[in-house]
Amino acid sequence: MKAIILLSGGLDSAVAAAWAKREWHEDCLALCFNYGQRHTKEIHCSRRLAEHFGWPHQLLTIKIPSQSALTDISKDVNQIVRGLPASFVPGRNLIFLSYAASVAYHHEVSNIVGGWNFIDYPGYPDCRPEFLQATEVAINRALGYPEYTLRLHGPLISLNKKEIIQLGQKLKVPFEMTWSCYEGWDKPCGVCGSCKFRTKGFEEAGIKDPLLIV
Amino acid sequence: MKAIILLSGGLDSAVAAAWAKREWHEDCLALCFNYGQRHTKEIHCSRRLAEHFGWPHQLLTIKIPSQSALTDISKDVNQIVRGLPASFVPGRNLIFLSYAASVAYHHEVSNIVGGWNFIDYPGYPDCRPEFLQATEVAINRALGYPEYTLRLHGPLISLNKKEIIQLGQKLKVPFEMTWSCYEGWDKPCGVCGSCKFRTKGFEEAGIKDPLLIV
Repeated sequence: MKAIILLSGGLDSAVAAAWAKREWHEDCLALCFNYGQRHTKEIHCSRRLAEHFGWPHQLLTIKIPSQSALTDISKDVNQIVRGLPASFVPGRNLIFLSYAASVAYHHEVSNIVGGWNFIDYPGYPDCRPEFLQATEVAINRALGYPEYTLRLHGPLISLNKKEIIQLGQKLKVPFEMTWSCYEGWDKPCGVCGSCKFRTKGFEEAGIKDPLLIV
Repeated sequence: MKAIILLSGGLDSAVAAAWAKREWHEDCLALCFNYGQRHTKEIHCSRRLAEHFGWPHQLLTIKIPSQSALTDISKDVNQIVRGLPASFVPGRNLIFLSYAASVAYHHEVSNIVGGWNFIDYPGYPDCRPEFLQATEVAINRALGYPEYTLRLHGPLISLNKKEIIQLGQKLKVPFEMTWSCYEGWDKPCGVCGSCKFRTKGFEEAGIKDPLLIV
């Protein structure tokens, strides 16, 4: 096995997964976290996408001690709390990457791929290149590797949503198998921050979002 | 609240906790992980120690995807696997620290303390100062802090077991409330690597281990 893909089932992770598919073909493992999200719709998408790419799918159920609106359905996910979006789950990506590193060690895998990007979401500190760089060093030291034995790949890191969608189209991502909305209804709510970015991205890319075709 | 103490219930974490007690008195939270250890004796010790220090105690139950002998009772904990002790749980300290960082964010705490040390255990990469330094940077970037807002303190980092025990005596650590043995029997097994280090440490420090007094 060559790479572990953090595949949440969202749009970004699906495009990152398609990038990994081009790099490493079948030699990948899709890793998905159930961490008490507001809904499990994304997790179903993650499974379908892994099947689409022909990869095994591993779901890790973990509990993140957080008061984020993303893990508390009673909260409004579109507010600002302590200067950050209420959807920010403090330490989430570091916890995910720590687990991914442990799984990577187990399978003797040297690459971890994720859909992190910060252009559209400057408020999420753990989606920035500086975070990934520091975490890559910490992971290699934790596992006793010479630095850069285990590489973190963020192929979307400096793309905006329009560019991510264009890359996804080029890589033939099945957009209908992805889910971005903070709610878990039949159709996207269309009003949450995540829906707005997705809609705007598809519009700017000049592509129709299959989730919005009636 | 000023500090979060990673209090496993082992000897080292108890001495680090006593150090934290001297620094921050009652303003601490003891954090303990149930990650599928071979026994829960240490967790009981962690609770008793927190009570002794007058701190609240938080137990986080998590699952680490590992094949370590420390989480698999069918394995021999004293073997060498892939050049490292079989008791090594890959990524464990990074996972613990990621969770601790999340809890620290929640309580707006700026200090995390642990009993990491490497002199006696050079085979554990995630107990070395280079690991802690890199992880401190990664944590601060994950949480969007200016670097070094959240500090990791390893007061035992360059002490050997004898020196740790001598420091513990000076700080009045109730050694009888600690547990080091890899087994969870009534008395320490006396033959595992952890027992051997403890026994040797107490001998060299010229102190009687209360667990071995009949």
